[in-house]
Amino acid sequence: MNTWDKVPGMVVHEREPYNAEPPGAALAGRPLTPVAAFYSRNHGPVPDLAPERWRLRVDGLVERPLELSLDDLRRCFGQTEVTATLQCAGNRRTGLAAVRDIPGEHPWGAGAVSTARWSGVRLAEVLAEAGPRPEAAHIAFSAPDVSEVAAPPETYGGSVPLDKARSPEVLLAHTMDGRPLPRVHGAPLRVVVPGWIGARSVKWLTRVTVSDRPSDNYFQATAYRMLPAGAEPGPGEGVPLGPLAVNCAVLTPGDGDRPPSGPVPVAGYALAGEGRTVARVEVSADGGESWTRAETDPAASPWAWQHWRTTVELPPGETELIARAYDSAGAAMPESPAAVWNPKGYANNSWSRVRVRCRG
Amino acid sequence: MNTWDKVPGMVVHEREPYNAEPPGAALAGRPLTPVAAFYSRNHGPVPDLAPERWRLRVDGLVERPLELSLDDLRRCFGQTEVTATLQCAGNRRTGLAAVRDIPGEHPWGAGAVSTARWSGVRLAEVLAEAGPRPEAAHIAFSAPDVSEVAAPPETYGGSVPLDKARSPEVLLAHTMDGRPLPRVHGAPLRVVVPGWIGARSVKWLTRVTVSDRPSDNYFQATAYRMLPAGAEPGPGEGVPLGPLAVNCAVLTPGDGDRPPSGPVPVAGYALAGEGRTVARVEVSADGGESWTRAETDPAASPWAWQHWRTTVELPPGETELIARAYDSAGAAMPESPAAVWNPKGYANNSWSRVRVRCRG
Repeated sequence: MNTWDKVPGMVVHEREPYNAEPPGAALAGRPLTPVAAFYSRNHGPVPDLAPERWRLRVDGLVERPLELSLDDLRRCFGQTEVTATLQCAGNRRTGLAAVRDIPGEHPWGAGAVSTARWSGVRLAEVLAEAGPRPEAAHIAFSAPDVSEVAAPPETYGGSVPLDKARSPEVLLAHTMDGRPLPRVHGAPLRVVVPGWIGARSVKWLTRVTVSDRPSDNYFQATAYRMLPAGAEPGPGEGVPLGPLAVNCAVLTPGDGDRPPSGPVPVAGYALAGEGRTVARVEVSADGGESWTRAETDPAASPWAWQHWRTTVELPPGETELIARAYDSAGAAMPESPAAVWNPKGYANNSWSRVRVRCRG
Repeated sequence: MNTWDKVPGMVVHEREPYNAEPPGAALAGRPLTPVAAFYSRNHGPVPDLAPERWRLRVDGLVERPLELSLDDLRRCFGQTEVTATLQCAGNRRTGLAAVRDIPGEHPWGAGAVSTARWSGVRLAEVLAEAGPRPEAAHIAFSAPDVSEVAAPPETYGGSVPLDKARSPEVLLAHTMDGRPLPRVHGAPLRVVVPGWIGARSVKWLTRVTVSDRPSDNYFQATAYRMLPAGAEPGPGEGVPLGPLAVNCAVLTPGDGDRPPSGPVPVAGYALAGEGRTVARVEVSADGGESWTRAETDPAASPWAWQHWRTTVELPPGETELIARAYDSAGAAMPESPAAVWNPKGYANNSWSRVRVRCRG
């Protein structure tokens, strides 16, 4: 095992703060990602919070501010489990960086996405207990991890609109795959916002604040926003990222692999946008001239990815494999990363491309 | 005035059943579409229902089947107004048909989309009154208009999942822009399912059936489904269309227009997917080499389109104007209609293209 009990094959983009993704083969074909392979995106040093002293404050525009211990959360509220995929806004950034340089951002491959069974309390129930006032419109999350990406350094935070916060899939999770949250994944409690960029699933949660506006935290007001090409990041610039769009990637074979020519199994994952399902996944080995439909596993939940697989006949020599998915709204993935390039390199959902060189 | 009190400029694809869309100029710049220009998609002859004798049955998996008159709906339930855009699944089909023929389907341009203020009762309230049983999972809508597209001919219907049916924006509407629904738009009562393909907003509604499965009506089980290229329509083939994806179109200038060269105003509409907003709209006059960001009006509601406008400098001669939009999930419109071509020609959201020839 490696840092933070991760598998040795993790692709570590940064040691401190720890930023790492699993290799494609560790994700392939598995509905649930082993915790030891689950990607980890951090903005500051990993906090070490003593569970027995930890408290969650619920404040802001509420009738009854709360202070809850872990025991309170486990005993006074219903416990719910949701299988949900988290995807970093920067997943597949390498595809964008190949179009034009994206300085200062990690070159995530297609592994900044993972799936777990999360258990905990519905955020809706905690909010109902606190009683949001009529002006309530956004729910902000605060954590104690300090990030030097913000200037001056700032603790991590973000917010989601009240409607999403009240949706039954949004959890305050203390458990991941049946065990207490590991420290690097947010112990003792994190938010899980299925269907939205991972950045809103705030780890090491200590405070939930009901507000009439979005959080002014750096990671809501400045970072994790979609900027038009040519714009500079700055408070309020661009549009805050929230829901995820349809996406997919080839996991195996990996880029640069050298399988024998002939029938080659190809496998990967696909995700649909919020409220949608994956309609189909297609694979091409001839630059998009012809497409083979992949077989798709059922999703473990409406909030989980789907794995897919097919077999393509490959000649000796170099071939580019392309995968693309469609969701139930008919939304397609754009062919070219140039069409979705943006200054911070978020939300790349252009066709997934992998080069292999088959042995003759 | 024309058939069904529509403006003379309507592009009529079929007289009986009546299928017509307004010219782009009738939609441009107007947050609300005049009722006389609102597109009309029909699958059979327009029913003529006497409001005083009309009743709505609510049945299926419910504790208390209901039979409601218009008066019951107006007096016993809260009245709500929602400004919502409806878009036909076939909107912009011409772009797909240019790639490969789509026989038997109307060649809709970019005008099969319109916006109105709808008033009526929340479907959620009527369902709550009837009391869905625990197995309830889908809500089916039935109407008396008979369609010969189905073989044998069948009355029109469809369904939405229970979660969507219970969403507060979904109405049983008796009023359109402050007046009783016109006959061609579903009098005396229709469903309005904002954010979903127009086909689910069933007109001339007479029955709401709570079920444990989707409707087996032809227009749910066979039509209005996304089929992979090469597949044949058939019951259960493909994926039922529901939520809409990000889309936009140039409305003015129109295709083939001959404006004077120099600064030319360009305007159109953009829609985001459900739960998303339009992040930006861009226009190119050089085949996608460079893009100008358009100014976007605020949306009248989370369920309404947004109009946009910009000015581009055009030389004498022929130019192709291209528009593309992005939503707040970072979802882009695909460049080429070939990538979204499907056998029934639904859900075209590839870049919008208009050819103009400027006078020197």
